Amino acid sequence: MSRRNDPIEALIELMARLPGLGPRSARRAVLYLIRKRAALLVPLAAAMQAVADSARPCLNCGNVGTSDICEICQSEARGNGLLCVVEDVADLWAMERSGVFRGRYHVLGGTLSALDGVGPDELRIPQLLSRIEAEGVSEVILALNATVDGQTTAHYIADQLEDRVALSSLAQGVPIGGELDYLDDGTITAALNARKRL
Amino acid sequence: MSRRNDPIEALIELMARLPGLGPRSARRAVLYLIRKRAALLVPLAAAMQAVADSARPCLNCGNVGTSDICEICQSEARGNGLLCVVEDVADLWAMERSGVFRGRYHVLGGTLSALDGVGPDELRIPQLLSRIEAEGVSEVILALNATVDGQTTAHYIADQLEDRVALSSLAQGVPIGGELDYLDDGTITAALNARKRL
Repeated sequence: MSRRNDPIEALIELMARLPGLGPRSARRAVLYLIRKRAALLVPLAAAMQAVADSARPCLNCGNVGTSDICEICQSEARGNGLLCVVEDVADLWAMERSGVFRGRYHVLGGTLSALDGVGPDELRIPQLLSRIEAEGVSEVILALNATVDGQTTAHYIADQLEDRVALSSLAQGVPIGGELDYLDDGTITAALNARKRL
Repeated sequence: MSRRNDPIEALIELMARLPGLGPRSARRAVLYLIRKRAALLVPLAAAMQAVADSARPCLNCGNVGTSDICEICQSEARGNGLLCVVEDVADLWAMERSGVFRGRYHVLGGTLSALDGVGPDELRIPQLLSRIEAEGVSEVILALNATVDGQTTAHYIADQLEDRVALSSLAQGVPIGGELDYLDDGTITAALNARKRL
């Protein structure tokens, strides 16, 4: 629309491409940004530029950080022999939020998919194999998503690592606070099969 | 969390303050931005800086644009004597999207509110009154929201403008595509009271 000036329109179009925002909420967000020019718009532009200049994948594990080797891989304390394999950085961040895992990670960058032509070499699986010896890993925890592709990938990795290192995967069952009525059949089946004696 | 480096963490915190995004979706959006560094993150940082440098309120109507007087106020064709009063810029943009109104706007910047200490002078109402003569306005259309505050403000403006200019407000009734079953009682009452003979 001619009424709206170009820079504002351009910003709305870019914002609308963010996950979780559509054209309407992007417009709302841009108006909000213009109103909060000094408090939010200017710092946000600077923060984006700073991340664009500094963010890079960790060469060792695939985490996103601002140095070639991320803080987790640099930390001696976290080289405790435990290595948690996740699909992507979002999963790594989710694990870190829980604060319960004190080892290191390996980010695959996706799942194996014959359909999409994603093979082991696209997934940083060779790097995973070479880390086992290099970092003296004693146990690999496969924290892949409970999807078909995730589990296929877990099986492939398990095949590769068998006899070289202890393997485990996250337990499946009823989520904390979950109500049976809202759970899918697969989760209930898994929870029942893995039931614990009291 | 120490694991996440400062610039990324800072960007997540700023993004989480946007309307429509929370901490979790902000994190997701930032990961997406880092993945799409060249295609989205860098252009978005530049677009935000461009808007921060150029966006300003129109001195005449309160619309947001990149010049002191917005395109609508500059357009001779839109000085047709019709003036549409809206609460904020989002409402102006919504009216413009419909493309049906070809006059000018006046953005109040909110609604009267005794509770929040918002009086006529905070709302660009004096500027509205002075525009009536200056621009030869023949009809003022009150397009304020159908809320208590919006309607209070409309009544106040109507009192001020009575005998000086023709006044109208948007029709109330069933929205296009609306199903009676999902409408509130107030809307049904308004639609029934304003029923039209076929």
